[in-house]
Amino acid sequence: MLTYIFVIAITAEAMSGALAAGRRNMDLFGVALIAFMTALGGGTVRDMLLGNYPVTWTQHPLYIYMTIGAGLFTIVIAKYMRRLNRLFLLVDGMGLVAFTIIGCNVALRLDYETPVVIMAGITTGIFGGILRDIMCNRTPQVLRHELYASVSFLVAILYLALIYFGVNENLNLLISFVFGLSMRMAALKWKWSLPVFSYSPDRWND
Amino acid sequence: MLTYIFVIAITAEAMSGALAAGRRNMDLFGVALIAFMTALGGGTVRDMLLGNYPVTWTQHPLYIYMTIGAGLFTIVIAKYMRRLNRLFLLVDGMGLVAFTIIGCNVALRLDYETPVVIMAGITTGIFGGILRDIMCNRTPQVLRHELYASVSFLVAILYLALIYFGVNENLNLLISFVFGLSMRMAALKWKWSLPVFSYSPDRWND
Amino acid sequence: MLTYIFVIAITAEAMSGALAAGRRNMDLFGVALIAFMTALGGGTVRDMLLGNYPVTWTQHPLYIYMTIGAGLFTIVIAKYMRRLNRLFLLVDGMGLVAFTIIGCNVALRLDYETPVVIMAGITTGIFGGILRDIMCNRTPQVLRHELYASVSFLVAILYLALIYFGVNENLNLLISFVFGLSMRMAALKWKWSLPVFSYSPDRWND
Repeated sequence: MLTYIFVIAITAEAMSGALAAGRRNMDLFGVALIAFMTALGGGTVRDMLLGNYPVTWTQHPLYIYMTIGAGLFTIVIAKYMRRLNRLFLLVDGMGLVAFTIIGCNVALRLDYETPVVIMAGITTGIFGGILRDIMCNRTPQVLRHELYASVSFLVAILYLALIYFGVNENLNLLISFVFGLSMRMAALKWKWSLPVFSYSPDRWND
Repeated sequence: MLTYIFVIAITAEAMSGALAAGRRNMDLFGVALIAFMTALGGGTVRDMLLGNYPVTWTQHPLYIYMTIGAGLFTIVIAKYMRRLNRLFLLVDGMGLVAFTIIGCNVALRLDYETPVVIMAGITTGIFGGILRDIMCNRTPQVLRHELYASVSFLVAILYLALIYFGVNENLNLLISFVFGLSMRMAALKWKWSLPVFSYSPDRWND
Repeated sequence: MLTYIFVIAITAEAMSGALAAGRRNMDLFGVALIAFMTALGGGTVRDMLLGNYPVTWTQHPLYIYMTIGAGLFTIVIAKYMRRLNRLFLLVDGMGLVAFTIIGCNVALRLDYETPVVIMAGITTGIFGGILRDIMCNRTPQVLRHELYASVSFLVAILYLALIYFGVNENLNLLISFVFGLSMRMAALKWKWSLPVFSYSPDRWND
């Protein structure tokens, strides 16, 4: 099931990358590259941080085709994206949860300690979006708007807690998904967000 | 021959990094660092992605001196750069082709599958320029203007196809170079570029 | 002693990350993440460049808590930061020197050649600040203002020279610290900076 959701998720992430590239008037190559980096960048950074070689996507060339294909396809359907916005956000939320759980599992398999496992989950969940925003020269959105990175954090905690209490893997996946997705959808609906820290001393300018 | 061109290429890339740093009013250290990252960053990212340790330049300290030297030298000759622009673009194009082929060879040696070999070639070809633009806080130029990243892609395809068909290595290098460099020069002359994807929904602002 | 200073240093770096995040109106999660990346990012990039796995902080979860804690604590004391500015710059300078020496030692232990050891020292010293600025979408400050990266460079040179001349490790640490910290403080006091390279051709716009 996780693989199935992963495939849907990287498609959604690739599409969000393509739209961000479109906002910067990039050419087809830029769209394809940023779609790829948004979808697979989180897992890549995680693998490089954990020394988990070979990096996952290098062993699954299909993921390369899928993310680039989804990126280019987004150009065709861009004009309908506003209408598809709610569906898109749902799939994006599924991706966030799936990526987080997959990231935790990779770190668990390599016997890292719990805090590192959580960091690996969050990295997989949000770093694709961070790379997308860095490539598109804007401040990472995932750290500023409705709960996103925090959902990844809470899902990682919940998933590890349920493993700790010996909950069956499938049940754990189900609970973590329902929790994470509800949380994200609720945050979008009711504009839940974390408190913002605004700091603007006079002497700084950049 | 490839080593010879590689040396010319990292010099050209270092100079392009230095000029970008100059546009951001960086100090000498910034110029040196960005020259270094532009010239050797593509290969470094490739090595880190492929787990190809030790990273190439760490075994050739000469490359460090050369790129930093080229970067600082650029400051001296900056006022002539406009007149040298065509030479510069030619050398930069040679670098693009040389980097792409070297990147493919590294991935081939490590037995990665064809799509990953192509990605390794492109990464080596264009990621130095992407790091340069991220360090200088601008949207990556290689994804927006005349064919650049696409030339890297086509060179990688051609080079691998000629290997597949058993073409002699030196002949392959010659054909790939002539093709890639002509392509890039033609793109600059006649302003060939890929279609651009422009997306600007109302509800987004960043 | 170096460990003791390291702990103070990552706290200072985490705080500088939190303030930068505050200037971009990030939420609590963004503050925590950028604090973490500023404090431990330099060492992480160094470990990934040198293939020094497992990455240091993954073996010391305490560092994760400390940097995130320091980042969040910064929000509470932000309004006093201007008054604390001189103390902050002192601690930040200590961090710069400590990080540089630690980075050199890691590369020495892995038997890299001298120029690579220096690069490892500088990377550890300044890359956390560079990642902070990239995440906050601004041009890296460490390459533009009063001597900072250059201090890291000179400390690395001095530290290695003293090792070469067989100076006792503790004495070496003392000398390198006094030199590096004086240099940085003097640069701040008398606004020492490297010459700036300004390049602004007409035909470029970005």
